[in-house]
Amino acid sequence: MIEAGDLRALERSLREGIPLARAMDVRVLDYDGHRLALSAPLAPNVNDKGNAFGGSLSSLLTLAAWGLVNLKLTEAGLGADVYIQDAQLSYVAPVWGELIAEAYAEGDAWPGFIAAMRDKGRACITLLGEIAGADGAGTAARQSARFVAKAP
Amino acid sequence: MIEAGDLRALERSLREGIPLARAMDVRVLDYDGHRLALSAPLAPNVNDKGNAFGGSLSSLLTLAAWGLVNLKLTEAGLGADVYIQDAQLSYVAPVWGELIAEAYAEGDAWPGFIAAMRDKGRACITLLGEIAGADGAGTAARQSARFVAKAP
Repeated sequence: MIEAGDLRALERSLREGIPLARAMDVRVLDYDGHRLALSAPLAPNVNDKGNAFGGSLSSLLTLAAWGLVNLKLTEAGLGADVYIQDAQLSYVAPVWGELIAEAYAEGDAWPGFIAAMRDKGRACITLLGEIAGADGAGTAARQSARFVAKAP
Repeated sequence: MIEAGDLRALERSLREGIPLARAMDVRVLDYDGHRLALSAPLAPNVNDKGNAFGGSLSSLLTLAAWGLVNLKLTEAGLGADVYIQDAQLSYVAPVWGELIAEAYAEGDAWPGFIAAMRDKGRACITLLGEIAGADGAGTAARQSARFVAKAP
């Protein structure tokens, strides 16, 4: 079970372990057992046109997915180094306000991922992610990314 | 013709227009008429494992490609808003030192891009990019990304 303390620990590890996450002012917003949501204000993540910089969208999607893998490992009582392997990104519409990214696995991929970690100490998983448009208006950016976890 | 002043102006616009580029400490390293190289030190771009954060690699590749599109528009005497549309990224190996990203167009795509901008005020182009491994040891990350430019 993930508790509030685990989410605070994740936020702390993002902000203390990754200077760019602190520069982006990333916060853990919500976790419902399936989806992890992170937020970041627009001001430190703006581009020359006054909307969100593509690199900030990509970084927040990557952090949300990376954080979710780590929460699922924590839930299973496992520790591992988690790396991103590849990513496909679509930038659908500009983001003019707060950035909110959600990450989740398609279908029920976690049991196989955790079983492979227990058996082999190494496992891969593909995570999807989205950044919401303003006022819930559809999706502004989406990502599909593959992560690998390796036992230390 | 792009002159040293244009490269300094690009660096200034990156660092002044995009707070995250300043947080990353991005610099314009070189432009040979085909490839634009940007650099960023490891310290502000590090992750929890002591190598470069994936979001920093993605952001630097995006900035290099975005900067190259803007230089080519400047060369042609054109101005436009330049947006990233989509990106495919591969993270091949960790980066343990300075981040150096190069962006370039495959083949000779610029004349068609500039002609479309002149005719229609709107054009797309796919740019490739790479982040070098340590001591010139192959490629640590690569990106293929599509950009759209629109006349203001």
